Amino acid sequence: MALKVALLGCGVVGSQVVRLMHEQADDLAARIGAPLELAGVAVRRLGRRRDADVDPALLTTDAEALVTRDDIDVVVEVIGGIEPARSLILAALNSGKSVVTANKALLAEDGATIHAAARAGNADLYFEAAVAGAIPLIRPLRESLTGDHVHRVLGIVNGTTNYILDQMDSSGASFSDALGEAQALGYAEADPTADVEGFDAAAKAAILAGIAFHSRVTAADVHREGITEITATDVASAKAMGYVIKLLAICARSDDGRSFGVRVHPAMIPRTHPLAGVREAYNAVFVEARSAGQLMFYGAGAGGAPTASAVLGDIVAVGRNVLAGTRGPEESTYADLVVHPMGETVTRYHVSLDVADKPGVLARVADMFAKQDVSIQTVRQEGHGADAQLVLVTHRASDAALSATIEALRELDIVRDVVSVMRVEGEDTP
Amino acid sequence: MALKVALLGCGVVGSQVVRLMHEQADDLAARIGAPLELAGVAVRRLGRRRDADVDPALLTTDAEALVTRDDIDVVVEVIGGIEPARSLILAALNSGKSVVTANKALLAEDGATIHAAARAGNADLYFEAAVAGAIPLIRPLRESLTGDHVHRVLGIVNGTTNYILDQMDSSGASFSDALGEAQALGYAEADPTADVEGFDAAAKAAILAGIAFHSRVTAADVHREGITEITATDVASAKAMGYVIKLLAICARSDDGRSFGVRVHPAMIPRTHPLAGVREAYNAVFVEARSAGQLMFYGAGAGGAPTASAVLGDIVAVGRNVLAGTRGPEESTYADLVVHPMGETVTRYHVSLDVADKPGVLARVADMFAKQDVSIQTVRQEGHGADAQLVLVTHRASDAALSATIEALRELDIVRDVVSVMRVEGEDTP
Repeated sequence: MALKVALLGCGVVGSQVVRLMHEQADDLAARIGAPLELAGVAVRRLGRRRDADVDPALLTTDAEALVTRDDIDVVVEVIGGIEPARSLILAALNSGKSVVTANKALLAEDGATIHAAARAGNADLYFEAAVAGAIPLIRPLRESLTGDHVHRVLGIVNGTTNYILDQMDSSGASFSDALGEAQALGYAEADPTADVEGFDAAAKAAILAGIAFHSRVTAADVHREGITEITATDVASAKAMGYVIKLLAICARSDDGRSFGVRVHPAMIPRTHPLAGVREAYNAVFVEARSAGQLMFYGAGAGGAPTASAVLGDIVAVGRNVLAGTRGPEESTYADLVVHPMGETVTRYHVSLDVADKPGVLARVADMFAKQDVSIQTVRQEGHGADAQLVLVTHRASDAALSATIEALRELDIVRDVVSVMRVEGEDTP
Repeated sequence: MALKVALLGCGVVGSQVVRLMHEQADDLAARIGAPLELAGVAVRRLGRRRDADVDPALLTTDAEALVTRDDIDVVVEVIGGIEPARSLILAALNSGKSVVTANKALLAEDGATIHAAARAGNADLYFEAAVAGAIPLIRPLRESLTGDHVHRVLGIVNGTTNYILDQMDSSGASFSDALGEAQALGYAEADPTADVEGFDAAAKAAILAGIAFHSRVTAADVHREGITEITATDVASAKAMGYVIKLLAICARSDDGRSFGVRVHPAMIPRTHPLAGVREAYNAVFVEARSAGQLMFYGAGAGGAPTASAVLGDIVAVGRNVLAGTRGPEESTYADLVVHPMGETVTRYHVSLDVADKPGVLARVADMFAKQDVSIQTVRQEGHGADAQLVLVTHRASDAALSATIEALRELDIVRDVVSVMRVEGEDTP
């Protein structure tokens, strides 16, 4: 009795899933306890050239019919995006078929509906591939660390932006040159918005925060800033101070543990921090828990084969569950913690100001920080005369206080320009 | 309806399990779907001072009676060692109770019997805490990567030896001084044999290899060398060449994929390798799989609270399974690959020779390598006159060929002493 798999989408990831299901058929059968059979592949257009060696008889453009076909046991969704993925997944779950998906955008936008449908359909919903590609992260968070109390999840979860920032750091390239190179190498798409504006990382952050804090989190809860405004000067200036700029996803409980924040933004981290050494398109995520302490997970965060590895692991899990007549862990949102606004986030800031060359400038600037109770850790002047810049690094302060300070500085006649404001992270981690 | 837990052992780990079950009772209940109740704690002696705040009425010295008590759902074994742990675990499984254990020695010595009992008793056997403490590694390997083809598992899985080697590297201390410091800090036991002779790491390597390669592996299959012979000179010499010495556990498939080797030994790794940056008592493990590529897992490999975190994660998993009337994944040994002898291991070697100060020495030494088909990558002479040392680094060669070479070198009149022979690893990883 074979387990019948319906595949939705046969692009970069789907074609690898097909290939690996074929190449590893014996191993997968032994691990599940029954062979897998690819029973149908839904594609947008028939007759297109594909990387995967799929029997043309399996191809269909009628995905709706495929996902509810009586003989299908598992639906694997690797189309991405909201529709038609959502309708198809819901149709599959509603008819009691388990679903394996890599769809971070959908889970972050409407996870509640999808999870509820899985529960109602008594079906499995696995999505290891949705976050950090091949890196086992969802399962460790959902299962291995479920006896612990997670304080914070912090990491690099978007390979495209990491590639771009790494290029800028190592070669001094501008953002647009680095983006062009990433596009030429296939690391960035023709329309790079989802990556460079942080939407992709924000969706992943929402999923991670929801699992880590047993609460419901959507992409709308995530404070999101992309990397398009990062200049070669920012990168060089960070480098000179012993920092590197990374796009981080940070899910962190408040000090009282009763709320948490979720944010995606570029940040300066010390060059000695393990995340600073994450090069090219790799991903790495720190998880900090009360008893486990600090854990790090590192690996390929994207790409056809790595993502397919995670999808296949989930297919095996679902297959075992189907055979045993059971289900994997459900969504856990019992804690129902509040997502606090970005203004309540507490961290450190690096601020560069273009200032007039007059006596008393520092005193007046410092006064603006003091008025908002933002304590300055270091300040130094770069250049002199008309080119003088003040570079300040603050102690920990709330984002609201920092924003108010920056607003006040912009009003100051002696401040010609607020050149850059960047958060500083990772100084409390090894 | 509470899930009743019997705890075997109330030492460093057990007392943390008790504390966390109490402190996190509400969260654990919500995550499992039923409260956990500590129903009994088996100890060797009553009336002893304990870290944990255990109701004395729960303590018993009759572990046999406790594990088969009708009301017990889950038995948590944190005694360690072979007996009485094995008998107690078998008694629990035979009476259908699921078991969570941190016992690497037992699983590596007699895993087959334990797994068979779990199967026969239709009970769960979870052991995330047995390898690398709080680091989720067993579950990712058993479940997340089960759709992939693992080539190699390579890492630092013993915190005590890593602490000692790290101290030797950073302060130039001798092995015995570093061991003394580790003992003073509680990182090493009064009798450090299990750690410093590599027994602990070998047990973990056996468990990891068995899971990674879906085969049965015992501690006896592991080639094991400890760190007691590593001298301050070895460490300094490695340092001078840009290497650091680490005790590695390596489980690697042969090139044809039909056999694999499992070994634990000190090795030189490049200082730029991510494992070189693993300091103090931390653990880190690389997993290399065909589709996933290279993954790294990093965290606290030992200690009461980190180990208890892994134990509690397993208790939650077992609890969910008990409520759902199901079981987690079973042992998977279908591949039944052969463990090849150490002689077939292929790697690189660093060899230091104390040689006579005569013309033609290098030619005669090189000839011994050539006779065994061991190709030399670099050779350099250190010191001169009576203190001359030849330091050679080979290309990849089999352990058998290298051993034969060393034996031949020892016979050579111009070789006064084979000062050190050490494997070089990690040059093919980033």
